[in-house]
Amino acid sequence: MTTLPPLLGHPVRRPTPDDHLPVLAVLDRWWGGLGGEEGSRQRALLLPKLMFQHFSSSSFLVTADERIVAFLIGFLSPSRPAESYIHFVGVDPAERGKGLGAALYERFFAYSRENGRSVVRAITSPVNKDSHAFHTRMGFVTEPGPKEFEGLPVQPDYDGPGLDRLSFRKDL
Amino acid sequence: MTTLPPLLGHPVRRPTPDDHLPVLAVLDRWWGGLGGEEGSRQRALLLPKLMFQHFSSSSFLVTADERIVAFLIGFLSPSRPAESYIHFVGVDPAERGKGLGAALYERFFAYSRENGRSVVRAITSPVNKDSHAFHTRMGFVTEPGPKEFEGLPVQPDYDGPGLDRLSFRKDL
Repeated sequence: MTTLPPLLGHPVRRPTPDDHLPVLAVLDRWWGGLGGEEGSRQRALLLPKLMFQHFSSSSFLVTADERIVAFLIGFLSPSRPAESYIHFVGVDPAERGKGLGAALYERFFAYSRENGRSVVRAITSPVNKDSHAFHTRMGFVTEPGPKEFEGLPVQPDYDGPGLDRLSFRKDL
Repeated sequence: MTTLPPLLGHPVRRPTPDDHLPVLAVLDRWWGGLGGEEGSRQRALLLPKLMFQHFSSSSFLVTADERIVAFLIGFLSPSRPAESYIHFVGVDPAERGKGLGAALYERFFAYSRENGRSVVRAITSPVNKDSHAFHTRMGFVTEPGPKEFEGLPVQPDYDGPGLDRLSFRKDL
């Protein structure tokens, strides 16, 4: 287990495959069981175990008294040498408002810069206003799209039919 | 667009983000619409656009008269320097039995070896007998698991609650 510098006083480490099911379990709690079993299944499909096996070295898991309180799954793009990508981030609702999400992002920005990356990308669902506000605060630009949802530019069918997304880009 | 040596006479190239929706569309056809809209959605979640953006350089797309007839999405593990991973493979049912799937795997094995990898991993659903037979023919070992399904060792809840998997490993 690799121990990393703490974030806001919390221990930080690389996630391992053993963290996969515990992370999926806290997600259901953090998301308030959104979407029932189907929502839970969709979150599991978005976060397959392979990410905890193969992207561990570019990801971060934050604990408090051994409990998972936040995590960031990201990677350095193998095919786009200037880019890195933030795939999934979660923060325990009980810990929100303290800057833990922002600190996690800053940690990933630093890791990306150290590895020669000059662009970070991330996406979110158009209905996720909080995510849009957060990414904007973190310096991301929402890329222009051919569709609009409540004033935000949307990439229709980005991840498949019906899976519209906002696409964020930040220059490091 | 990077052109690669042909496979069984078929043009081969790196997939691009523009191939994402066409690949999802042929999957529905190749899988015979398995699982209806829900099945289609699950396949889309397993194959997000990020794979066509960031894993393109380790993936292959095979065409015939511009039609997609097969593809392999794989990557060199960033966190496990000895390993590579085959995430998703599809072959047009009309083209099966000609060795296209095997040729695609061999191409990925060669790419993995050239990049210093000595182990390839892949997973499949326990009900997918054809996939198990294919991986066994290709020299993969099904890793021992604590559960059994019709004589095969299963990793229960591998990818999340209820998402059992067979886990394959091949030494190159």
